[in-house]
Amino acid sequence: MTVPEDSLLKFEIPEVIYGIGSLSQIGNCCRRMGGERIFLVTDPGLIAAGWIDASINYLSEEDLQYVVYDNVVTNPRDFQVEQGAELYRRKNCDVIAAVGGGSPIDTAKGIGILTSNHGRIHEYEGANLVTQPIPPLVCAPSTAGTGADVSQFAVIANKRTKEKMTILSRAITPDITLVDPQLLTTKPAELVAATGMDTLTHAIEAFVSSLSWPMTDPHAIHAIELVREHLANATQTKDIEALEGMSIACLEAGMAFSNAILGAVHALAHPLGGLFDIHHGLANSLLLPVVIRENLEHVPAKFAKIARALGAETRTRSIDDVAQEVPHQVEQLIGELELPTRLSQVGVDGADIPRLAQMAEADICMLTNPHCYRQSEIEAMYSEVL
Amino acid sequence: MTVPEDSLLKFEIPEVIYGIGSLSQIGNCCRRMGGERIFLVTDPGLIAAGWIDASINYLSEEDLQYVVYDNVVTNPRDFQVEQGAELYRRKNCDVIAAVGGGSPIDTAKGIGILTSNHGRIHEYEGANLVTQPIPPLVCAPSTAGTGADVSQFAVIANKRTKEKMTILSRAITPDITLVDPQLLTTKPAELVAATGMDTLTHAIEAFVSSLSWPMTDPHAIHAIELVREHLANATQTKDIEALEGMSIACLEAGMAFSNAILGAVHALAHPLGGLFDIHHGLANSLLLPVVIRENLEHVPAKFAKIARALGAETRTRSIDDVAQEVPHQVEQLIGELELPTRLSQVGVDGADIPRLAQMAEADICMLTNPHCYRQSEIEAMYSEVL
Repeated sequence: MTVPEDSLLKFEIPEVIYGIGSLSQIGNCCRRMGGERIFLVTDPGLIAAGWIDASINYLSEEDLQYVVYDNVVTNPRDFQVEQGAELYRRKNCDVIAAVGGGSPIDTAKGIGILTSNHGRIHEYEGANLVTQPIPPLVCAPSTAGTGADVSQFAVIANKRTKEKMTILSRAITPDITLVDPQLLTTKPAELVAATGMDTLTHAIEAFVSSLSWPMTDPHAIHAIELVREHLANATQTKDIEALEGMSIACLEAGMAFSNAILGAVHALAHPLGGLFDIHHGLANSLLLPVVIRENLEHVPAKFAKIARALGAETRTRSIDDVAQEVPHQVEQLIGELELPTRLSQVGVDGADIPRLAQMAEADICMLTNPHCYRQSEIEAMYSEVL
Repeated sequence: MTVPEDSLLKFEIPEVIYGIGSLSQIGNCCRRMGGERIFLVTDPGLIAAGWIDASINYLSEEDLQYVVYDNVVTNPRDFQVEQGAELYRRKNCDVIAAVGGGSPIDTAKGIGILTSNHGRIHEYEGANLVTQPIPPLVCAPSTAGTGADVSQFAVIANKRTKEKMTILSRAITPDITLVDPQLLTTKPAELVAATGMDTLTHAIEAFVSSLSWPMTDPHAIHAIELVREHLANATQTKDIEALEGMSIACLEAGMAFSNAILGAVHALAHPLGGLFDIHHGLANSLLLPVVIRENLEHVPAKFAKIARALGAETRTRSIDDVAQEVPHQVEQLIGELELPTRLSQVGVDGADIPRLAQMAEADICMLTNPHCYRQSEIEAMYSEVL
């Protein structure tokens, strides 16, 4: 019986090397992937924190040449990807290494696409449009939020239209991720909090996704349990054990969402990044409670399991009753993290809502949400948290 | 801080494509791995069941050439690997596909080692001795027990010494596994039972292994839960939902043990396969309860979690008390499966025990058991189940 590939379930992740000091394997890994001239993508913050000097030392120990590309901002832009690809080609690089958060990693993926596929990055927006393998890609994430180091996703902002383009292709899953919790120690508390909420959103959206399956569910639940245990402490104290817990939470959530895809929180968060340049983790955090309240009725049994992973007592209570706890649990966590809770706090005006909702309705992440919301429903959700 | 690679934790698995009919992707996957001439490793049972005719059709649909190699037996031998490698080279093949249980898959891995590394297969026994990448390897497992389709292990029997050689190298992790529960429908009930017990052993040994970590533990626990839910039913009725559950259990256990390694059950089971040609799953099943009883005192908290995954009521009882349930739970399952429980039932004599114990003490799998047993202790364990 021939079965179309699209009807089958997939589970794919990179090779993971985990532990304090694992960044020191970056030269070894680039060498193992066949590299001689490494294209190192990062951002100025990582350079200032000293991680790029360290990375360069590890590359040099393996006698590797390198080119550093750091023209990367939060919500990375199409022209930065194109500029990077041009430099990669001009310098005859052969392996890409990304050291940083989601922005350098997504930029690295975009550069990889353009170096081995034709045309402009805009042509690859959507699912499975990247047909040629990209160069080997080794990542070292510096936040416990992105999941980009394990996922088949890249999100690049269109400078002209200000839309965020979601690129979803197996070809852009990285080859190796070096998860070194030490890289988290140089991030400010509010970034630890916002990226941690990104991890929680990845896990919850993957778990309720219409493409979730028994291989993705345990990763999502484990990530939720770890966020509950470690995020507040990681934010408030930067205790290394808490940062280690969040590193694993991020990995687990990445494995879940890369293979089960995402949902309405991401669909609504992407326009906030594109139009207002709001940090992606913060955008998710602002929208997570209101989207959960709307999603509850569609998959109450799944939300009851999430409530349990977040610490709810579940005995002798109905599924619906337990599921109702999730938005409160999430709001309580956001309160502990002292993150903003209203869109108006981050520069959004009521007049912007129709345009935001129009973009969110068209976002590819809406397709795997338990329910596909229409523009009017989405406007109501944005208004709820204005 | 440069950290030696061996001190870091790893998690690596192949790309997984799951679902009824996923075997139909074998041509597509071999093509995607760059194949033109496919070396198809299997055994006569798979041919008789019709799965190789089906596989050949899928390869032909992609205009791929192929060579079938089916000189494979349970507990596959060194000379079969060497013969296969010689045929692979002579026919100028470029991708290996393995359709079958652990024996064809381990044979395929051995063939892959010899086609791209020098010397004899015996030189690669041990950890991390395979230095050159093997050809691309696509697997389609026909049992829900092996885990070889996701693991970095291959076990090959030495024809002369009758020892089973464990080869453990990242280089032999397959590239893609096509997990098609339909392949399980043509297996006899006793094989479903024995391979299912192999899965349970993989999960329990990985969970208590000294190399287990938060990325491997949830896979192990999920596998144990699925075995509890589905194995008896899969054996007794071959209900497709139960076979699907066992397929995922096998995948999960494979991901856990490939990255956390195994323990004393495997160390004691390997000589039974090498000297008496006892089926590997059955050998594990015979030894699992007695090894658990010895291991209990070393990691009681872990066994309490296993007891819970196997359905024990854990409230208001001490950890030690709950942990004690595991051997009884496992024995009860073995009883439901109607598998033999004594070594004397499968041809082992008391006089064989010293030699068996000597081989078991030297097995690489003993190194990651919660406690390294000496020969006299191992002899006592074999005697207990004689």
